[in-house]
Amino acid sequence: MTGQIICVGLGPGDPELMSRRAYRLVGEARHVAFFRKKGRPGQARQIVEGMLSEGAVEYPMEYPVTIEIPFTDPEYNRLLGAFYDDWATRLADLARTQDVTVLCEGDPFFYGSFMHLYTRLKGRVPLQIVPGITGMSGCWTATGQPITWGDDVLTVLMATLPEAELAARAAATDALAVMKIGRNLAKLKRALATAGRLEDAWIVSHATMSEQSVTRLVDAGDCMPYFSIVVVHGQGRRP
Amino acid sequence: MTGQIICVGLGPGDPELMSRRAYRLVGEARHVAFFRKKGRPGQARQIVEGMLSEGAVEYPMEYPVTIEIPFTDPEYNRLLGAFYDDWATRLADLARTQDVTVLCEGDPFFYGSFMHLYTRLKGRVPLQIVPGITGMSGCWTATGQPITWGDDVLTVLMATLPEAELAARAAATDALAVMKIGRNLAKLKRALATAGRLEDAWIVSHATMSEQSVTRLVDAGDCMPYFSIVVVHGQGRRP
Repeated sequence: MTGQIICVGLGPGDPELMSRRAYRLVGEARHVAFFRKKGRPGQARQIVEGMLSEGAVEYPMEYPVTIEIPFTDPEYNRLLGAFYDDWATRLADLARTQDVTVLCEGDPFFYGSFMHLYTRLKGRVPLQIVPGITGMSGCWTATGQPITWGDDVLTVLMATLPEAELAARAAATDALAVMKIGRNLAKLKRALATAGRLEDAWIVSHATMSEQSVTRLVDAGDCMPYFSIVVVHGQGRRP
Repeated sequence: MTGQIICVGLGPGDPELMSRRAYRLVGEARHVAFFRKKGRPGQARQIVEGMLSEGAVEYPMEYPVTIEIPFTDPEYNRLLGAFYDDWATRLADLARTQDVTVLCEGDPFFYGSFMHLYTRLKGRVPLQIVPGITGMSGCWTATGQPITWGDDVLTVLMATLPEAELAARAAATDALAVMKIGRNLAKLKRALATAGRLEDAWIVSHATMSEQSVTRLVDAGDCMPYFSIVVVHGQGRRP
């Protein structure tokens, strides 16, 4: 084993928000793997457009399923488990002789798909993780308001949770970031209304990119991009 | 008014984890302000050591008080409020004719001191914020374990909160990051024990820097650097 697998966090989308290390590693990479939905270019790959070295070999890792099957269906786990097993083996084989760079939008250890390869590769291959600016940081910066002050509690929720749990947790926190919006937006709006937080919520799409939009959630339609993030700012202690 | 004030998030500490934009802006800056405790170099200033342009003018903004007075004392707010008022005016005056760059470790809108200048400057001066990799991302990456999976709920807490609240919130979340440790470590340990989370907690100091230490919290002493962060990893859904 002479190679390693390096997962590079690319940040929220603006290529200039990649870390200097991520930029250097992407430019040096000879073998570049990244996740994408079938038929799509893939968010991570788009961020590094124009940065790959000549002759770099690309490995698009295409999810066998994204939202066509609910994740509660055992078939979902079976398909994705086999997909991650397969790619873990392929990347480990490559890493016998050379470094492999895996691209990840955001911060790899924060709800990232790479983690599913990571747990399969740990102990088999040398691994290196480069953290990145999270998508939610890109979003709260875009709102032009600090997210947390003083002793504020920040809660990060997935909109895939049940409505009652979303409402209870939104009511019990100072600041809030909600991800995995997609089809769950109407449910999330109801939950925030129940919690008394809807009026203070913002939804940000394509943060840090040219298509960036920042809207009060009450003014947003019910169909927003999957990568949208809802934020409610804390109002904590300040001198 | 021809200048602007640019707050640059510098990330968790390793200079190579600055964003490309942060690195560029720091290198171009002619007027560079940063917070520090009296008599200390300041974490933000240390990260950019060797990067400032020749002739850059530095403005160390020295806190009049940090932990000498409890933040519940009205005098604490009075002193800090006057300090932020004063620096907001000085930076706004400078920005009449030129750009001013303010350095911030981590991510400026996430519990950062710059927010107190930001609210005083908004509407008076053009402002730009560059997000950064958070200190907590540096910490969870250092533990070598993903922080959140699937639908995990992440809670971010300040150890300055009361023990009972820390315990209740630690018990009610999947993943946890706790900041502002310092003198609150013994209290935090008791709270995590009450919540049944102490055995799973890690404490990370100087993440991403040469002095980085990663320790199980049960094995840590009661005196750790203020900038230490405690993390408890989520164990959510995974295929």
